[in-house]
Formats: sequence, structure tokens, C-alpha cells
Amino acid sequence: MDEQIRKKVMEEVEKQLQSSKNTLKRSEKQSSLTEFVGTAIGDTIGLVIANVDQLLHEKMNIDKKYRSIGILGARTGAGPHIMAVDEAVKATNTEVLSIELPRDTKGGAGHGSLIILGSEDVSDARRAIEVALQTIETTMGDVYSNDAGHLEFQYTARASYAIEKAFGAPLGKSFGLICAGPAAIGVVLADAAVKAANVQVVSYSSPANGTSFSNEVILTVSGDSGAVRQAVMAARDIGISLLGTLGETPVSVTTPYI
Amino acid sequence: MDEQIRKKVMEEVEKQLQSSKNTLKRSEKQSSLTEFVGTAIGDTIGLVIANVDQLLHEKMNIDKKYRSIGILGARTGAGPHIMAVDEAVKATNTEVLSIELPRDTKGGAGHGSLIILGSEDVSDARRAIEVALQTIETTMGDVYSNDAGHLEFQYTARASYAIEKAFGAPLGKSFGLICAGPAAIGVVLADAAVKAANVQVVSYSSPANGTSFSNEVILTVSGDSGAVRQAVMAARDIGISLLGTLGETPVSVTTPYI
Amino acid sequence: MDEQIRKKVMEEVEKQLQSSKNTLKRSEKQSSLTEFVGTAIGDTIGLVIANVDQLLHEKMNIDKKYRSIGILGARTGAGPHIMAVDEAVKATNTEVLSIELPRDTKGGAGHGSLIILGSEDVSDARRAIEVALQTIETTMGDVYSNDAGHLEFQYTARASYAIEKAFGAPLGKSFGLICAGPAAIGVVLADAAVKAANVQVVSYSSPANGTSFSNEVILTVSGDSGAVRQAVMAARDIGISLLGTLGETPVSVTTPYI
Repeated sequence: MDEQIRKKVMEEVEKQLQSSKNTLKRSEKQSSLTEFVGTAIGDTIGLVIANVDQLLHEKMNIDKKYRSIGILGARTGAGPHIMAVDEAVKATNTEVLSIELPRDTKGGAGHGSLIILGSEDVSDARRAIEVALQTIETTMGDVYSNDAGHLEFQYTARASYAIEKAFGAPLGKSFGLICAGPAAIGVVLADAAVKAANVQVVSYSSPANGTSFSNEVILTVSGDSGAVRQAVMAARDIGISLLGTLGETPVSVTTPYI
Repeated sequence: MDEQIRKKVMEEVEKQLQSSKNTLKRSEKQSSLTEFVGTAIGDTIGLVIANVDQLLHEKMNIDKKYRSIGILGARTGAGPHIMAVDEAVKATNTEVLSIELPRDTKGGAGHGSLIILGSEDVSDARRAIEVALQTIETTMGDVYSNDAGHLEFQYTARASYAIEKAFGAPLGKSFGLICAGPAAIGVVLADAAVKAANVQVVSYSSPANGTSFSNEVILTVSGDSGAVRQAVMAARDIGISLLGTLGETPVSVTTPYI
Repeated sequence: MDEQIRKKVMEEVEKQLQSSKNTLKRSEKQSSLTEFVGTAIGDTIGLVIANVDQLLHEKMNIDKKYRSIGILGARTGAGPHIMAVDEAVKATNTEVLSIELPRDTKGGAGHGSLIILGSEDVSDARRAIEVALQTIETTMGDVYSNDAGHLEFQYTARASYAIEKAFGAPLGKSFGLICAGPAAIGVVLADAAVKAANVQVVSYSSPANGTSFSNEVILTVSGDSGAVRQAVMAARDIGISLLGTLGETPVSVTTPYI
């Protein structure tokens, strides 16, 4: 076989392999089931149940007052989904019932997610899941990845109930999240963030404390809006440099928003 | 390089990649070690130890009355292995000593397994592992997967000691298992199953409760044989539709048996 | 398209896929950040912080007496990193502050790592991380892997503080580690090791006890130097045979050292 053809093919293959690893794609498929709401990148699926079965309600350990539930789940992504649900509860008449973080990301360093919202009317749950699905495109914007790992940054001027439930952050205040996997990089980013601006540390999670054994360090901060943003942005620059030493320059999953 | 050749090659490569991800293969290799019994799909290996060392017995925290142990372990598969061992203990003079579920499936959403059987005579342990290895081909039949995740369904008319130990299900009664990853789909399947027939819920597990942080919801049910089967089958139809929205139509790993 | 070309390309692709899965590569890239020390195989990164922020110190729950910390983290590898840090603390004026083991290895059966060292002067922390990074090439030598899983063996004539902290092994005595994933193989290796020589069992870990739900059994032993070595070597031979039944013959990640 001609050596030049072989080489060119292998280059294409390697590119293809690389991109198949790093690109999170959104499925365009639909289901006609009434429970189906939609999908988003990260193998994210949004679902609703209009009337949760009594037996199941009890086993799920969720408040019976909510007949209807909205369900947001993903193979890849926890922070982006919590942030998206935070926007959804601001915009709808729903409550965050539970946030669970499987150890996933399909062989990556981080978490997937399973978030359950409650509402008295199914139309509220459906609307909340729709809002969340739309918002994930944005909240995935400051997730940067390469073959060695990922970085994640989040920022909001006003934290609502999902962020409070997930991280214990104060309601209504500015909130920032700094995350990196492998976890070692996250330690340096956490230090850089708190040194960069006058912020309060809300939580610090590491593989054995506060994560589901993910290979991440996750720092969340609260405080003045400008300071939080500054802390997050300082960490982001350093993260891209450090994760870049283990592979290609990390690239945004969608479009940076911070 | 000719564009048509390139395109065709890339299609082939993508097909190859896809199938290498989704196919669980069975190794045909053997070992001459006396501890080796055999292998099965899912990187499953069956082993025996005729006389467990005293020191190890203690550290493993298993009943010393069993000199011999049978060991069944896999990278991919927990439900199929528990069901297979359930058949094995029905057919042999062995006892289930421990069932542990690592977070595995080689980058998938679920569990692997490590199951230990005890017997007074090594021939019993060996026979049990042989039965289990043969049965996995069947119990993998209602595992359906695509690139986004998997579905698993199990059914037996009469639960024995492995199912009792793993899930707390009543002995001798009909038993069904409904599982999906990503976990969000499992919530809807659990609801559909309990609505479809008059069954008792034995257990409900989710990423943070009852799994090893896998990205699954697992419901187990008990009751009248026809009702359990109906519950499982109703969930199966919905599962294939929902998981299919995130990728290709999920396909059975071997041959459906329910 | 010519069938022969297609076949040859697919063979190349399969080889490429195989090797991309099994080979741990070391990045040659550098960062100009003062926190950056270097990288090693397994997506290992070594970092230092000269003056840990007060806020962070508290949240990390580490002794404030150490202003400077060294950080060693990896996507793939826990044992090799603990052994490497053990050499590093022998050679420098540092203390092991924490060892955390994420469930990682990028879709493999084992752990990644996050190890933090403390020192009063940053030059000590930096030197320790440098020593550790250099030593990983050696301590990865008796890690053997194929597509189905991995084996790991470690040996030292004199255990120091990192080994004591990670496994509770007695200081200054000979130490050995035997590990296999899938875990089923590890059970047989543990039995073989304790039968092969007169050693004391220090710890026995399995998916649900002592690991971060990894698909491994890990035995550590202590005792007379010759006996420990003999136990480790006996297990190694059996491990290579058993893991080999599930795939290709397992190969060393670098160069065996035991």
C-alpha cells in the first residue's frame, strides 16, 4: 500500500479520534412519549412525570406535596446542570428536590448528574426542564477540555435555590465555581482564586471529600459580584496553562460566557 | 489523496469505533492454573481457591467454615452476574458470601462486580462458577446499550439467595429488575414499571443512594409472576425509546430472554 | 474502493486504537508558571504553592504550620505515586499531609491520585515533587496492563511515611503491594502471595472496602525483605497468566524493577 496514502489516512483517523473524544454532541432525536422533554449536550436528557406513583414517591424520599416532577440527567456535566437548573427555578414555579452526582463523564475525570424538580402542576415542571435544557448550551461555555482532563468555571450575579442546595451558597448573592480535573490542578486554581480577589469560600471539595470520588478539586466562592468574577477569571487563565501541559490546549465545549 | 477514498475510509473507521465501543466480546483464552475456571462476556472471569489461606480468610471477613471459595468478577455487569450466581446457588451446594459492585463498565454508566461463593468442597465452588459463567450469556440478554448508556432488565420466577443478598428480595418469589443509565431515564422507567402492574417495590437505588456512584437508577420489584413480568416489559419498551433519543437504537448485548 | 487497501487501513486503525488505549505517554510540555514543577506518565502533574492562602488552608484541613505545599496528582496511578512520594519524603524535609484516591484511570479499573506534601520552605516541597516525578518512571515498571485490566506490584526494602499513611504499614520495614483489576483476579493473587512466603498482611482492600469503588483487590504485606519480595513475585507470575486470559498478554507500562 502506498505509504503516503497510509500516512494521510492515519492522520485523519487520529484527528477523528481526538475530536470524538473531546466533542460533546447534542442528539437531534425525539421521542413521542409524553415524559420526554428534550436533550442537550453531554448526553443530557430532560424528562417529566405528571403524577409520580405513590409507591415510588416514598422510595425516592421526595416530598409528596409535589405530584409532578421534572428530571434532568446527564452523563457529562454537574456544574453546568446545577447552574442551568438554578436559572430554571428562578423562571418557574418549581422546587429543587434532589441533586445527585454520579461518578461519570464517560471515562473523564468528573461527574454526571441527576437533578429532580417538583411542582404541583406538570406544566411548571416541563417548563423548568425546557429552560434548563436551553441554558446548558451557555453553562457549558466555560468548560474547557483536552484528552488529559477538564476545567470548569461558573459565575452568576445572583445565586438561587439550586446553587444553595448543591453547595450551600447564600441566596441572592454573587456566586462563582472553579473546578479542575486532574484534581492537582484544582488545588492551584483554588489558591489562585482566593488570592485574586476578596471573596468568601463557600465550599472546597476534593476526591475523597465532597465529590463522588471524582478526580477534581472544586472551589465555590461568594461575595461581591466584581470580586467573584475576578477570582473566577484569574483561575481560568492559570487552569488553561496548567492543563495544557498535559495535552493539547484546552478548548471550550461551546462558547465562553464569563 | 482522493476525497472519495478518504470519505469511505472514515465511514469504515467510524463504524469500527462504534462497534468496538458497544460490543462485549468473550475471550477464548485459557489458563492452565488450577484456580482458573473460565471467562464470559463483559471481561468476566471465574476462579476458585481450594483452600483459602488462614491469614487472608480473616482479612476478607468471610466465614471460616468455607475452606473453598468461588470467585466471579467482571469489568462490565452486576445485575447479569447476580442473576447468574442466583441460578448457580440453586444448582449447587454453595453459599453467597459477598457481593461487591465497583464503579466500572470501562467508561460506561454502570457497575462491574466481584461475587464470592463459599463451599466446603472445591468441586462445589467450581461447579457453581461454571454454571454462573454459562448463565451470563442469557442474563446479558436484556441488557441494551448504545453510545449514550444502557438499559438492563432481569426477571426470574423464583428468587434465591444471591438476589436476596444483593437486593433484600423475598426468597422463592418472582423478582424483576429495571435499570437505566443515564439515571434520569431510570426514574421514568421505575415509575412506568410500578404503574404497569400490581408489584411490590423491593429497592430503589440512585447515584448517591444504593449504587457505587454509578449513573443509574435501579428498581427491583417482587410479587406475582405475571405482574412482575408485565412491569419489567412495560419499562423495557419505554427505555428503548428514551435511550434511543440520545444515540442509536439500543441493541441487546446477546439475545433477549424475558 | 479497493478491498485490499481497505483491509490494510483497518488493520492499521485497529493497531492504532489498541496502542492509544494501552500506552501511557508523558507530555513534554512546560508551563512558565512558578507553581509548575513538571509532568510524568499517567497524566501526572507536579505542582507547588509557596504560600497557601489562609482561607484555603483551613478549608483543605491541613496543618497550618506548613506554609508551602507540594502537589502530585494523576489521572492514572495511585500505588506508583504513593511509592514515588515515599522516596521523595525520605530524600527531603517534607511531610505527607494527605493522600486521596479518586476513582479514575480514564475508563480503566483503578485509581488516580492527589497527594499533598507540606514543607516550611517551598524549595523543599519543589525538590520533593521533582524526586517523585522522576521516580514514577520506575514505580510504573511493575504495572502491567491490557485492554481488560491491569496488575500492579510494588516493593521496597524500607517503607517510609507515605506508605505508612496510605496503608498503615510499619515504618522502616520491607513492604510489598499486590493489586489486580478486575478485582476477581486480585483475590487469587492475594491468596497466592500470602501462601508463597512468610509475610504479615497489612491491608486487604476490595471494591466496597478500602478502595474508592475501584474494580481492584489490593493486598499489602510487610515482613522480612526476602519474603516480601518472594510473595510479590509469586503473585506477579499468576497475575500475568490470569489477566492474559481476558485479552492480550499484559505488558509493563515502563520497565519492571522488582
